[in-house]
Amino acid sequence: MIRIVILGAGNVAKHLFKAFMAQEELEVAQVYARNPKMLSYFGANTKTTSDLTKIETADIYVLAVSDDAISELSKQLNLKKGLLVHTSGSVSIKALPKGVRRGVFYPLQTFSANRIVDFKEIPICIETTNKDDFKLLKHMASAISDTVVPLSTKQRKAMHLAAVFANNFTNHMYHLSHELCEQKEIPFELLFPLIKETARKLEGLSPFDAQTGPARRNDKGTIKRHLAQLKSKKQKKIYSLLSKSIRTTYG
Amino acid sequence: MIRIVILGAGNVAKHLFKAFMAQEELEVAQVYARNPKMLSYFGANTKTTSDLTKIETADIYVLAVSDDAISELSKQLNLKKGLLVHTSGSVSIKALPKGVRRGVFYPLQTFSANRIVDFKEIPICIETTNKDDFKLLKHMASAISDTVVPLSTKQRKAMHLAAVFANNFTNHMYHLSHELCEQKEIPFELLFPLIKETARKLEGLSPFDAQTGPARRNDKGTIKRHLAQLKSKKQKKIYSLLSKSIRTTYG
Ligand SMILES: NC(=O)c1ccc[n+]([C@@H]2O[C@H](COP(=O)([O-])OP(=O)(O)OC[C@H]3O[C@@H](n4cnc5c(N)ncnc54)[C@H](OP(=O)(O)O)[C@@H]3O)[C@@H](O)[C@H]2O)c1
Ligand SMILES: NC(=O)c1ccc[n+]([C@@H]2O[C@H](COP(=O)([O-])OP(=O)(O)OC[C@H]3O[C@@H](n4cnc5c(N)ncnc54)[C@H](OP(=O)(O)O)[C@@H]3O)[C@@H](O)[C@H]2O)c1
Repeated sequence: MIRIVILGAGNVAKHLFKAFMAQEELEVAQVYARNPKMLSYFGANTKTTSDLTKIETADIYVLAVSDDAISELSKQLNLKKGLLVHTSGSVSIKALPKGVRRGVFYPLQTFSANRIVDFKEIPICIETTNKDDFKLLKHMASAISDTVVPLSTKQRKAMHLAAVFANNFTNHMYHLSHELCEQKEIPFELLFPLIKETARKLEGLSPFDAQTGPARRNDKGTIKRHLAQLKSKKQKKIYSLLSKSIRTTYG
Repeated sequence: MIRIVILGAGNVAKHLFKAFMAQEELEVAQVYARNPKMLSYFGANTKTTSDLTKIETADIYVLAVSDDAISELSKQLNLKKGLLVHTSGSVSIKALPKGVRRGVFYPLQTFSANRIVDFKEIPICIETTNKDDFKLLKHMASAISDTVVPLSTKQRKAMHLAAVFANNFTNHMYHLSHELCEQKEIPFELLFPLIKETARKLEGLSPFDAQTGPARRNDKGTIKRHLAQLKSKKQKKIYSLLSKSIRTTYG
């Protein structure tokens, strides 16, 4: 049995809480949030506190708070025992205090309040500063996910940057597409099967091989007509830059 | 029973052939391709020809050839009867000859040789110049798809442009992400669950509301660190432009 204390009550804290609670071998001993109002989600099933001096003892402390708060809050915690891990993709393991057993537990997924996610499928990237802690953290991660991967801080930061392209920028492409549909009064939903297939294709095909479209074919006529159809300067600029980038990718 | 002749033997022709053949009420009478070698895929199950003077009579002629070939080939066809439709998102209905019953049958999906697609889920955008032809084309489309949508040439061209953002540019984001993973020697496959969830999220959330990440939060520190991590000028330029575009989207 691994005893866990979760610090934070945001998206990641909530999703992890649910996933941990579903496992016999994991026990969530307590959830901390600075704002007591945020604790109602957890209250029925575990102890909660808003008082940093009343944190329970645990094997692992999971710091699921905003990136900027990791360093400061972990200092205030003043832990004597246990392994302290944060859940960020872009924060160094060294942001945690020196005197403490340190680790990182980064679930490579996008979490929002109202989405149900299957943790079994979510890769969890872990890092620790010593071997025994690695075993312990791997044990906790493997209890909820089928894919647990050791990544150094440097690798994790690179992964996080790759995720910005694969998630943030991809979502922005959806937004620009949505915007165009609204401007022309056609239903964006018609694109859902295309969007899903674009993602699914990666299972059998590298994105390099999956690329299609006017820029890939260097079809200058269509590119020109598309640019003329676009109204805003921003849309035109993005269309041009990405078309150029695709063109140079294929020489 | 609707009698169909397919002209072309590429990705769209093959996928449509399979989908039509699976329906009792549709009959593929013949497939034409200029290159006889391309006809082996169809030969066992239907008549084939490479001779434009030997085209069978049909209710609907489906011209699934490259955009550039639509106008010329449809003139050479010299049809006396039947409805002639092309399958392109970006070509006007007027590219088909004036004296002929004309239409468009545009499946809003990305087709590649080795992918199985479920036509039931693919929106088919149709257009004709007269009402009876619309009924006939709708009948054929509804036999293979649950979503048949009337779109004018203007609307279809806008849809095609929106699809460039949702498919072509999205895939390029996957490529840039893949490139980063290779440069840092981390497995791109770890991003698959994230990529799929990014697409699935649209079912409950507009892309405007789904946006996350450093640009959305206007987290200048992370953006600066990310730009420093990127090696190539091209990567930096795209990262900057898209981050700026996200920032202005949220004022
Ligand atoms: N969301 C994702 O998709 C995702 C995915 C992987 C990893 N992560 C990482 O997981 C961590 C948490 O992200 P999240 O999405 O759960 O964020 P979130 O929903 O915004 O929640 C942040 C939590 O941190 C708390 N917090 C912020 N500053 C604090 C402080 N100074 N002291 C105490 N608590 C503080 C907030 O409390 P208040 O409510 O009182 O402000 C809130 O409970 C971050 O490191 C993030 O990078 C996020
Ligand atoms: N692929 C997609 O994802 C997709 C989706 C929706 C709509 N569409 C549209 O569907 C149509 C076909 O696309 P596709 O992807 O199937 O293309 P494709 O795989 O490249 O196949 C094109 C076909 O057109 C034939 N062709 C080209 N020029 C010709 C000519 N002058 N005379 C006779 N045949 C000629 C080719 O014959 P050869 O083999 O002899 O060159 C080939 O059979 C296009 O209008 C496209 O815009 C495509």
